[in-house]
Amino acid sequence: MLSRRGLIAGAAVLGAGMVSRVHAAAIPEAPVQTSPAMQRPLMPPDGRPYNPVVTLNGWSLPWRSKDGWKEFHLVAEPVVREMAPGMRAHLWGYNGQSPGPTIECVEGDRVRIFVTNKLPEHTTIHWHGILLPNGMDGVGGLTQPQIPVGKTFVYEFQMKKSGTFMYHPHADEMVQMAMGMMGFIVVHPADPARHRVDRDFCFLLAAYDIEPGAATPKVATMTEFNLWTFNSRVFPGIDHLPVRLGDRVRIRVGNLTMTNHPIHLHGYDFKATGTDGGWVPASAQWPEVSIDLPVGAMRAFEFDAIYPGDWALHCHKSHHTMNAMGHGVPTMIGVDHRGIAKRIVKLVPNYMVMGERGMADMGEMEMALPANTLPMMTGQGPFGPLEMGGMFTVVKVREGLARGDYRDPGWYRHPPGTVAYEWKGPSPRG
Amino acid sequence: MLSRRGLIAGAAVLGAGMVSRVHAAAIPEAPVQTSPAMQRPLMPPDGRPYNPVVTLNGWSLPWRSKDGWKEFHLVAEPVVREMAPGMRAHLWGYNGQSPGPTIECVEGDRVRIFVTNKLPEHTTIHWHGILLPNGMDGVGGLTQPQIPVGKTFVYEFQMKKSGTFMYHPHADEMVQMAMGMMGFIVVHPADPARHRVDRDFCFLLAAYDIEPGAATPKVATMTEFNLWTFNSRVFPGIDHLPVRLGDRVRIRVGNLTMTNHPIHLHGYDFKATGTDGGWVPASAQWPEVSIDLPVGAMRAFEFDAIYPGDWALHCHKSHHTMNAMGHGVPTMIGVDHRGIAKRIVKLVPNYMVMGERGMADMGEMEMALPANTLPMMTGQGPFGPLEMGGMFTVVKVREGLARGDYRDPGWYRHPPGTVAYEWKGPSPRG
Amino acid sequence: MLSRRGLIAGAAVLGAGMVSRVHAAAIPEAPVQTSPAMQRPLMPPDGRPYNPVVTLNGWSLPWRSKDGWKEFHLVAEPVVREMAPGMRAHLWGYNGQSPGPTIECVEGDRVRIFVTNKLPEHTTIHWHGILLPNGMDGVGGLTQPQIPVGKTFVYEFQMKKSGTFMYHPHADEMVQMAMGMMGFIVVHPADPARHRVDRDFCFLLAAYDIEPGAATPKVATMTEFNLWTFNSRVFPGIDHLPVRLGDRVRIRVGNLTMTNHPIHLHGYDFKATGTDGGWVPASAQWPEVSIDLPVGAMRAFEFDAIYPGDWALHCHKSHHTMNAMGHGVPTMIGVDHRGIAKRIVKLVPNYMVMGERGMADMGEMEMALPANTLPMMTGQGPFGPLEMGGMFTVVKVREGLARGDYRDPGWYRHPPGTVAYEWKGPSPRG
Repeated sequence: MLSRRGLIAGAAVLGAGMVSRVHAAAIPEAPVQTSPAMQRPLMPPDGRPYNPVVTLNGWSLPWRSKDGWKEFHLVAEPVVREMAPGMRAHLWGYNGQSPGPTIECVEGDRVRIFVTNKLPEHTTIHWHGILLPNGMDGVGGLTQPQIPVGKTFVYEFQMKKSGTFMYHPHADEMVQMAMGMMGFIVVHPADPARHRVDRDFCFLLAAYDIEPGAATPKVATMTEFNLWTFNSRVFPGIDHLPVRLGDRVRIRVGNLTMTNHPIHLHGYDFKATGTDGGWVPASAQWPEVSIDLPVGAMRAFEFDAIYPGDWALHCHKSHHTMNAMGHGVPTMIGVDHRGIAKRIVKLVPNYMVMGERGMADMGEMEMALPANTLPMMTGQGPFGPLEMGGMFTVVKVREGLARGDYRDPGWYRHPPGTVAYEWKGPSPRG
Repeated sequence: MLSRRGLIAGAAVLGAGMVSRVHAAAIPEAPVQTSPAMQRPLMPPDGRPYNPVVTLNGWSLPWRSKDGWKEFHLVAEPVVREMAPGMRAHLWGYNGQSPGPTIECVEGDRVRIFVTNKLPEHTTIHWHGILLPNGMDGVGGLTQPQIPVGKTFVYEFQMKKSGTFMYHPHADEMVQMAMGMMGFIVVHPADPARHRVDRDFCFLLAAYDIEPGAATPKVATMTEFNLWTFNSRVFPGIDHLPVRLGDRVRIRVGNLTMTNHPIHLHGYDFKATGTDGGWVPASAQWPEVSIDLPVGAMRAFEFDAIYPGDWALHCHKSHHTMNAMGHGVPTMIGVDHRGIAKRIVKLVPNYMVMGERGMADMGEMEMALPANTLPMMTGQGPFGPLEMGGMFTVVKVREGLARGDYRDPGWYRHPPGTVAYEWKGPSPRG
Repeated sequence: MLSRRGLIAGAAVLGAGMVSRVHAAAIPEAPVQTSPAMQRPLMPPDGRPYNPVVTLNGWSLPWRSKDGWKEFHLVAEPVVREMAPGMRAHLWGYNGQSPGPTIECVEGDRVRIFVTNKLPEHTTIHWHGILLPNGMDGVGGLTQPQIPVGKTFVYEFQMKKSGTFMYHPHADEMVQMAMGMMGFIVVHPADPARHRVDRDFCFLLAAYDIEPGAATPKVATMTEFNLWTFNSRVFPGIDHLPVRLGDRVRIRVGNLTMTNHPIHLHGYDFKATGTDGGWVPASAQWPEVSIDLPVGAMRAFEFDAIYPGDWALHCHKSHHTMNAMGHGVPTMIGVDHRGIAKRIVKLVPNYMVMGERGMADMGEMEMALPANTLPMMTGQGPFGPLEMGGMFTVVKVREGLARGDYRDPGWYRHPPGTVAYEWKGPSPRG
């Protein structure tokens, strides 16, 4: 029987066609997730304990333990991602979804990650922020051969430090990231009491350019994207971040778009406690309400959820809380036009100029849209139309949620495909 | 007589048509400012003392004290803003101007802000950075109903901490911010000796896309804006920041455009002492000469004005110190072209190619422009053409200005509509 | 004989035509560098000692000492810059290159910089980040007259503090920076033991818009640049950063483009130790792997090179590691298209759709390109095609390089015009 060692030494690149039954047993399963709904956190089944994260509209990848290594299996492949109810995008991702599953492990862990390429072109994976041997760095051509179509490459390294990291290809990079290939990595501290919080959320920022009515991103777009996403979801398809009153909360974000995104949280100030380079010492922390996420960078920020309510969490660039169709609209606002409109109305009684008074009407009226297209501004809250899209969701701080490690029955998620802002707690007067 | 309490409990949304004489007395005046010139600071007429700020080309909103509350009245409405002499924009703003007036109060103050909607569509106000009850957060649909056209909504909250904040709509947000709806908030420390400076300036960054010859912004523009403003003014329409030699100076800036703006000050290095999240501890402060303002974020930075002179203060993106018409110009620089030009000149003696040697000539020549349009590069200084536009002004550090709390006769402002760089102090040699 | 003093007092602006033989002797030589290859560091020939920097694909400007001043001579002029083998750009720069030479001096030095204008239009130089008298600040029209064509202006000031600075025009600024006019300034500490590192690299970020087949930048482009450069070079034309295992390394970067650039280093985390405002105190430093460079700002970051290998150093915006021709390509990825393609192939046997499976093929195939144009993705590494362009290079950490002050024979540079990734050290398995 082929030993693990033999497998590694002799066949760094495994052809799927070459894999015997013995080999097949040597490669761990590649679990697949087809739902875009936020999954319960993955409690560690074995190995050292940690407090798992929750991936916004995502999931964490199960592993198997083998001879002191944690073995994961990522499959790069075309996927269909529901961005919000009513729109499905044809992306590239991992294990059935874009972004791929979150990889969680513990400081000191030795991890072995099998990467099988089921894309129509070669790929690699770069482990962004991880300290590792040069040969494991995943830069196609520079530190390893590209992984050919149909083959499996095995990465092996030890997690030297805890923190917030991500993975993405370093092969045909513009195309493969524009198609959605990315995933989160969280390395938990060896001592679960260090950097402990009650709720730990994570997600990636990705931008797509998908023409209304189409499903595949235009991969050469550099600036004029029309879908700005949290984990390849747009409002109203993004899950809430449910939090119990009094919880210590951490939100981890990574940016793989082409521009900075200032992530703004209402109702709180907070501090960045970590980056993809490590934990930020207390002496260096700034109080903030909008944390600017540079491209190719990550931030973890924390706060005590002591104020109950529905607190908006969104990118503060106003076009990034809109869905597609927002940018080619001509401006009709203006006095002159209204004069003209009145004269037209005399001739054509039902004449209506969209946007002559602003665009708020669009949040209310149901316009006919091309198939597979979301409204530019949409969403209904407890007090009426929200007029949002894109990178927008809500941190819900409630008395009613049970505290703690996520295993409690109070774990809360609104049903997939619905948007339920049930909060009517304090009246609108305060 | 309707009590205050009755007013609040019974009529959070007041219809203008419903307001009786009794009601009318219950709503404070809404002062209007029609001049775009920088106004003297508003000394607190009553309440706790503080050192007021100066709003660049703006003003602070008077309030009335009532039963222990400070009452302000903002009116959202269409306005005409002179961006610089020679160009007026049709914007939306508050109380006669865009941006709206600065709201100043003191840590611990209870404030009641009446917001009357005279726009053609509904609106709300979000109090960016302020810690307040969820129902006062101003997110239309989520935390309150939209304020209908013609109605008044009353916000009430206590200022929990001092700092640098802003207000803007959270309703039809892309449109309403593209039209200029925004304003500054400064909450002064309860103890006026804390964070005290001698000069305290504030302004917001806004971007507009107004076609040469037009007056109304194109509200769907995402990146290709052509007017980059400090408080909806462009050079040479932006007032100076006059400072006495030796003053401790604070400049507070908030960004409501769609891109980062690195605000660069010549002649000094400085440190950011505050954000919209709070005061930055000394241990965390970086020395800088260009402070990057993320979108939806604010920075306060400070320095001791110990070097006399005219020190440029501007966004360091070169296109942001230009006015409109800068971006469609073809490049004529090049040897080949000059060869062609020579041959053309033989045939057409007066032929002139704009820009074949660069564009510096444009700062000098007076080109015919469409009505209501500013030159791309303009301005005359003591040593010739400045060739600037957009986000550019000058911090003037002078011996001659009286020091202190702004009440002194030395308060200095150049006459509205003029640009007077009279400084000839140290010779150009140093 | 005209004394130095008389020269300065009487002739701040020297007409080239006016310069007598005596004058000529008073103006120092203006050395010219025509090679785009990285030059050995300039060891200080006299004056106080310091550890020189290495300018990526650049050089440092020699000076002469005169009466206690260091005298430099910059000549602003049109230049031809090879961006990578196969493409030459017609830029404006200084002393034969764009960017201009790095100016190095020591804290406390008195420097006199002669600036001769051989451009077709007027210019000035602003000394970004330097504390100096207002008249030396270089803002055309505001602090000095523009320097006319053919004339020489003399700047004089004392370097008050050590740090990382740059120079660029403050005259027709959009055009002159779009044409490549910029250079680095390093002021070394008075005590060479302070802030000492073993390797000290510096470069500027510049963006150009040069149409495939053309040579002159389009100067009015605001966002859609197509050549993203380190010191006006693109991959594979950018030199490596060679480092000995165990070296303390500093990399200094300044940004004169129109957008933020997150400079990402593989294999390490690091800390920013300086900005153009000064040295960052240890208490304020953040650990990072991607450092965001705002426009008009500079960062110095440091790390101990304890991990051997070829570590990519690049901007993390995926389009910025591509060369021109990348952004107008239509997306061919998709199931439907492949169906159509099959049907077309029945009719047209040799039909090939570029990019239907992604664009990785483009890194491999040799497409016919217009003259003077670089491939969109290119470069060969030890393991195959790298598929990169633009702002990408490699930090090479090797046992074999001699340590220290750069004078050693181990100083390493790959031959100009070649890309040699010879590293095969640790196997791709780690």
